Amino acid sequence: MRQDNPASPLSRDSDQTLTGQLAQRFADRIRQNWLAPGARLPSVRECARQHEVSAYTVVAAYDQLLAQGLIEARSQRGYFVRQTPRAQPDKASATSKPHPFQPSAPIDATTLIRGMFHEPGARPMPGLGTLPPAWLDAGMLGAALRRVTQGDKLIPLSLHYGEPAGDARFRRAMTHRLAEHGLKVDAEQIITTVGATQALDLVTRALLQPGDAVLVDEPGWPVEFARLAQLGLRVLPVPRGPEGPDLDAMRKLARDHHPKLYVTVSVLHNPTSTMLSPGHAHKVLRLAEAHSFHILEDDIYSFLAPAHATRLSVLDDLQRTISVGSFSKILTPSWRVGYIAAPRDLVERITNTKLLTTLTTPPMLEQALALCLEQGQLRRHCERVTQQLDAARARCIQLVRQSGCRFVFDPQGLFGWVDTGMDTERLTLPMLDAGWLIAPGALFHAQRRPSTLMRINFASSQDAAFWKTLQALRPRTRA
Amino acid sequence: MRQDNPASPLSRDSDQTLTGQLAQRFADRIRQNWLAPGARLPSVRECARQHEVSAYTVVAAYDQLLAQGLIEARSQRGYFVRQTPRAQPDKASATSKPHPFQPSAPIDATTLIRGMFHEPGARPMPGLGTLPPAWLDAGMLGAALRRVTQGDKLIPLSLHYGEPAGDARFRRAMTHRLAEHGLKVDAEQIITTVGATQALDLVTRALLQPGDAVLVDEPGWPVEFARLAQLGLRVLPVPRGPEGPDLDAMRKLARDHHPKLYVTVSVLHNPTSTMLSPGHAHKVLRLAEAHSFHILEDDIYSFLAPAHATRLSVLDDLQRTISVGSFSKILTPSWRVGYIAAPRDLVERITNTKLLTTLTTPPMLEQALALCLEQGQLRRHCERVTQQLDAARARCIQLVRQSGCRFVFDPQGLFGWVDTGMDTERLTLPMLDAGWLIAPGALFHAQRRPSTLMRINFASSQDAAFWKTLQALRPRTRA
Repeated sequence: MRQDNPASPLSRDSDQTLTGQLAQRFADRIRQNWLAPGARLPSVRECARQHEVSAYTVVAAYDQLLAQGLIEARSQRGYFVRQTPRAQPDKASATSKPHPFQPSAPIDATTLIRGMFHEPGARPMPGLGTLPPAWLDAGMLGAALRRVTQGDKLIPLSLHYGEPAGDARFRRAMTHRLAEHGLKVDAEQIITTVGATQALDLVTRALLQPGDAVLVDEPGWPVEFARLAQLGLRVLPVPRGPEGPDLDAMRKLARDHHPKLYVTVSVLHNPTSTMLSPGHAHKVLRLAEAHSFHILEDDIYSFLAPAHATRLSVLDDLQRTISVGSFSKILTPSWRVGYIAAPRDLVERITNTKLLTTLTTPPMLEQALALCLEQGQLRRHCERVTQQLDAARARCIQLVRQSGCRFVFDPQGLFGWVDTGMDTERLTLPMLDAGWLIAPGALFHAQRRPSTLMRINFASSQDAAFWKTLQALRPRTRA
Repeated sequence: MRQDNPASPLSRDSDQTLTGQLAQRFADRIRQNWLAPGARLPSVRECARQHEVSAYTVVAAYDQLLAQGLIEARSQRGYFVRQTPRAQPDKASATSKPHPFQPSAPIDATTLIRGMFHEPGARPMPGLGTLPPAWLDAGMLGAALRRVTQGDKLIPLSLHYGEPAGDARFRRAMTHRLAEHGLKVDAEQIITTVGATQALDLVTRALLQPGDAVLVDEPGWPVEFARLAQLGLRVLPVPRGPEGPDLDAMRKLARDHHPKLYVTVSVLHNPTSTMLSPGHAHKVLRLAEAHSFHILEDDIYSFLAPAHATRLSVLDDLQRTISVGSFSKILTPSWRVGYIAAPRDLVERITNTKLLTTLTTPPMLEQALALCLEQGQLRRHCERVTQQLDAARARCIQLVRQSGCRFVFDPQGLFGWVDTGMDTERLTLPMLDAGWLIAPGALFHAQRRPSTLMRINFASSQDAAFWKTLQALRPRTRA
């Protein structure tokens, strides 16, 4: 888990030779899975050109990688990442069969995620999933934190366990927030979590058992696919269209596989930013009723959504739908405050699962966010961010069109789902070399497949230089 | 999840009738599992005496409970909690088979835990697992929090995602802390977690798959048993003696069931406070090697332990042993800061599992604790607490002996494992009625069984009134 900068140019002033630096860079990428097993390394000539070094330096670096067992040479074809470069003898493992708790299909889900913590540079990165820090408001957070922790107030927030379901003030504030988009819910139905990720994890663990089938949107959030696979669940992808899931495909999967759950993002779906239509929502609920499955609605982009957005949890009145969300996309990714709004008959089961997995969550951070909610600061912040995002999106739309790419769906919300006409997975490394992190379409599929699409973040894709670099790579990587 | 006070006397000034209050109290206890399915309610005469109401009031209250379907009358035998009082029609469940992800054996693990958040009164409670808030130091925490969040320092701790493995400064500070008891570990081997509970959860999920067998100490921490059961793992209890696990039993279980993991508390084991002996430690490691299982060493009472304590992770040099711990028992239960110290070959797998389940953890709280570690404040605090605990334990030892109870093992650390000569589970409700939360021995067994033992917390069992109440109940509840 090196946190060095993979996109900085090789340094001639370094203590390490150019050969050593180049070998190290490839070794890091292989270990971090940016270069997957079986991937082909650039030709010696291309690599020399990219890194402005001699062919001799590249050959020497590749030799080091060969010696380390990280790559292999195939006669007449070039250098490839070895199939099991990271396999280490697992001394305590009695069997050598592959580990089913390890995600297999979306092997690079965690790599993409790690990219979020490993920004190649200070520039905004089109592949990231969050708003740039400059758009957020540390002043609001700091003031709220000081107010809830001043003097003796820190004592109950530190020296006692918090309530199992989460800070009571935060849960009350959430009921008002959710009522704004039509979800009627009591504070007793709110359970706080460590971000939306734990919310999804807790609901899945409380409702399902290994071997159960789960419907997911495809394309969709790769971390979710990996998480479900790690829990031993069968992931059934349903193609996502502009109005929601493909209902015929969903009906067939429901009939054949008896899923227990459908995990979906109704509002500003990731990566497509599509919105569930009211007609589709009604039919999805009918299907859920007919085939007796629950729905887990991930409302993570709620704060960036237009007022009219359709939510399954609202239509269903929180009967068989569980709604989850967080403050990571609008206020603070690292405070890790999320929530579950659960049907009454599931509250106890989910709260018990929370107790078994993290006991409680830090009430201090929840209470500070409650203050931001209560005082209307969060609403004003959302209005500012939404305006800023609208402007950024308008600029991006121009840049996308000028670059010869096109939108698969109408651009809205935080993400654009863009067709580049090139295999975007093959673009990832050259773009990284040029200092840009992208999110290739293949990552958003439950079953890995080539894709010419990529997800862009409108807030961080406004640099014309990014689009120029992409265009320049076109001839070499055309699919 | 009512947070009312179950031990307050019935009120004659309440809007609710005495009958209504009494029925409500029993209903709450049944729903919260303090009264388990099949448990017998007190006789009408006994209940009337306990609550200082007329027999008529009790009969009327029991009638209400009968009407609510919570209890049933058995001819000539009295009133009993119905077997499935909390079963609600699960509309989305296609099958009616019991839910394997729900803990079945230690049905009341979550009830005990909830007791931690549901103190019957302001008095220290002998059944709790934490130090009383008055023993902790909010001033130290507040100062550290202010220092790490002042001015612009809040920005990186709020507006960016934290590092996947956790705050770098905290991880460095932890290496020095662990070195103090002989564990040599690099910062890259430390992964932060939401308390020790998530640490245990992540390691289990990263290493095991449903159906795998796990060795645990018995008696042991019931939340751990429930968590393992919920993950679909087979829990194999190993009797815990004064020097550690019963090695013959462990050998036989290892041979017959091929466990993948042994979860244990070597130092100040909960609930017995026994310490693993060096001889036992060596033999456990030999067994782990012979039968190829990992060891998960829960070092949660580390800060209260004597300097000479034997740890498997130290002997093993963190090869097949994973050490976990937290700051919940020494500084702050509700900040939820824990850690994993992992063998190098497991770091990536465990970090990926963390990403899939909570993404990251709040770096702000980790960094504030790093400050407490770096400045030696935590060490001084530990010295103070340990002295205070020694004095409290000495007083408790007197009280235990005067009450006619005896210690099963030499009293040390935070917990005493006390034989009362009475069925402690049958003591739980009368003691709660008298305002005392106890931790009955049966809860600490993987398979529920009657027990005359209970766990007491030396820091919160110094009130002579508690021991007098216990003694007074003796004739009525003798096993």
